[in-house]
Amino acid sequence: MHINDLDTPALLIDLNVMERNVRKMAAYAREHALRLRPHTKTHKSPELGKFQVANGAVGLTVAKVSEAEVMLASESPDLLIAYPLFGAAKMTRLTGVAAKSNVTVSVDSVETARPIAEAALAAGVKIGVLAEVDAGLHRVGVQPELFVDLLRGLAGLEGIELRGVAFYPGHIKGPDTDGLTRLSALISGLIAEARRAGFELPVVSGGSTPTMWHSHQIEGMNEMRPGTYIFNDRNTVISGACTMADCAATILATVVSTSVPGQFVIDGGSKTFSSDRAAADGFGVFLDTPEALFEKMNEEHGYVKHAAHTRKVGDRVRILPNHVCVAVNLHERIYGVRGDRVETVFEVTGRGKLQ
Amino acid sequence: MHINDLDTPALLIDLNVMERNVRKMAAYAREHALRLRPHTKTHKSPELGKFQVANGAVGLTVAKVSEAEVMLASESPDLLIAYPLFGAAKMTRLTGVAAKSNVTVSVDSVETARPIAEAALAAGVKIGVLAEVDAGLHRVGVQPELFVDLLRGLAGLEGIELRGVAFYPGHIKGPDTDGLTRLSALISGLIAEARRAGFELPVVSGGSTPTMWHSHQIEGMNEMRPGTYIFNDRNTVISGACTMADCAATILATVVSTSVPGQFVIDGGSKTFSSDRAAADGFGVFLDTPEALFEKMNEEHGYVKHAAHTRKVGDRVRILPNHVCVAVNLHERIYGVRGDRVETVFEVTGRGKLQ
Repeated sequence: MHINDLDTPALLIDLNVMERNVRKMAAYAREHALRLRPHTKTHKSPELGKFQVANGAVGLTVAKVSEAEVMLASESPDLLIAYPLFGAAKMTRLTGVAAKSNVTVSVDSVETARPIAEAALAAGVKIGVLAEVDAGLHRVGVQPELFVDLLRGLAGLEGIELRGVAFYPGHIKGPDTDGLTRLSALISGLIAEARRAGFELPVVSGGSTPTMWHSHQIEGMNEMRPGTYIFNDRNTVISGACTMADCAATILATVVSTSVPGQFVIDGGSKTFSSDRAAADGFGVFLDTPEALFEKMNEEHGYVKHAAHTRKVGDRVRILPNHVCVAVNLHERIYGVRGDRVETVFEVTGRGKLQ
Repeated sequence: MHINDLDTPALLIDLNVMERNVRKMAAYAREHALRLRPHTKTHKSPELGKFQVANGAVGLTVAKVSEAEVMLASESPDLLIAYPLFGAAKMTRLTGVAAKSNVTVSVDSVETARPIAEAALAAGVKIGVLAEVDAGLHRVGVQPELFVDLLRGLAGLEGIELRGVAFYPGHIKGPDTDGLTRLSALISGLIAEARRAGFELPVVSGGSTPTMWHSHQIEGMNEMRPGTYIFNDRNTVISGACTMADCAATILATVVSTSVPGQFVIDGGSKTFSSDRAAADGFGVFLDTPEALFEKMNEEHGYVKHAAHTRKVGDRVRILPNHVCVAVNLHERIYGVRGDRVETVFEVTGRGKLQ
């Protein structure tokens, strides 16, 4: 099928670029003896998770127990749920996943770990935990001065196995040498402190997309969890972690109105792209007219200011989104293309999993 | 089932408030002899569309042909697709809908109308059109000075039936008397101009949520298409079109971390609420602690600043979202509650329909 036969809006992935991204990251991880555990929030597709595992990933990361259920189909050797799960329904689902796969949950309090331990004991399954530390983003994660206290609390819970430490340095934007130096000192200091207190931490799992190529500079870290790198997006370009040529995902859209002078309107808005602006001006870049400003969105309308105004109704355009993970979450399927040919379709089975 | 038995995050609708909103709008429309054609983008559920039709709506509005397919199940007497559809796949689906229901499409150019006319002729179905005029939002809609030209163009196309005019005054925020006066003059002027050119326009369809209670002040308008009124949201409160007591939709969430001082984190972020800020500060209002600031979101994390910081892990909170339509689009189901009881579940069948 030619891409012009697709109805719009549609999310396209350039397979050549995606495959290159996956292999390049695997080579980087191998070179630096880092375990690669991609976060699947970017693609939400078991088929793509399987591709990552077949190409150097040691396992996969998800954010929700419902996503772990979906990702069982990837046949990943194990799954990390990088989120402090809480609630009875989630515990039932978690032990269900643990009965089928090796699973680890990152937790930042004894309050979240205790129900996991109790559920694991009751169900007769083994569940690992990583102690999550706040490395500076100030989102979740025990404060560093309380890290060893958390380790002691976790070690006292029967039913779970303390497997290491997790952190997410989302506050470091791009190649920030000072930030990386401070992070490295923090993590290696915590590992040393834990060791003095009698805790070995086999897994030291961290990383983010902007810092992905600097993972080897973080002393003691032995596992990385990048997500966006499989497709990349405009924010990744802006962070300096990739170039435009490394971006695999575009949205194919149709011009549906040119009625307002100096503007054209495309058939995708916040329901197609998400309203994430993040680091970028406008809501995406038009591949063939980068000077066009994707200025505004409603749910179904994208407003594009374009002085030259050479677009006519029915024209098809391709747009590089700002933040690909949230865009993927809005699509039922991803079309894998090479050149102008649609070669395959990935079902976004993990789309919209909230629990 | 008690709402505490629901897994989180979950979208709750207070049925008493929702039913009152639907009936109040129907009474307003009846009082002013306006035809009420609710936009179903707010609930995306055929069951709720059916409830609107059973309570005074003459028909329903959708934004996509895929949404029209879903809304056939509402058994609405007719459907308006308030969007300039374009593309071969959409034409096939549109004639499919037209074979099952009376359908009208709003168009702002002959370029979008022609393929609709050709598809209708080829399929032997009748499709209505409304000529959409730009009433000042500058999104889609023929410019007013070209309105009669558009009517002439549409009248020349065999296969479609020109049924009237559509407009969306999304630029008028709240009870803006000057804006309403100008809008009224524009619309009544266009109707008069069309009449002089020999065009009767049986349907004059307009309205927006902020202007919903002022629809009767727009001279010549005989049909209104509010959407958000069924649930209302924080932006509707801010616009002055409803009060907090009229808001039916809340998100039930769980506190999953209190590790960072002065902050708690809930298990919902942009994948649960959308990242729409719109008119409001922060991403929603906490019902029982309105002073808490819902400051920041990532996909799965909501960061809440709360000086008192009395929350603990596992606490459940309810949040009034800024923009309910985009939140609904992220949920597979809506839980209908009375007090603390879950009385019914509405499947959001029209969720995420992009084409």
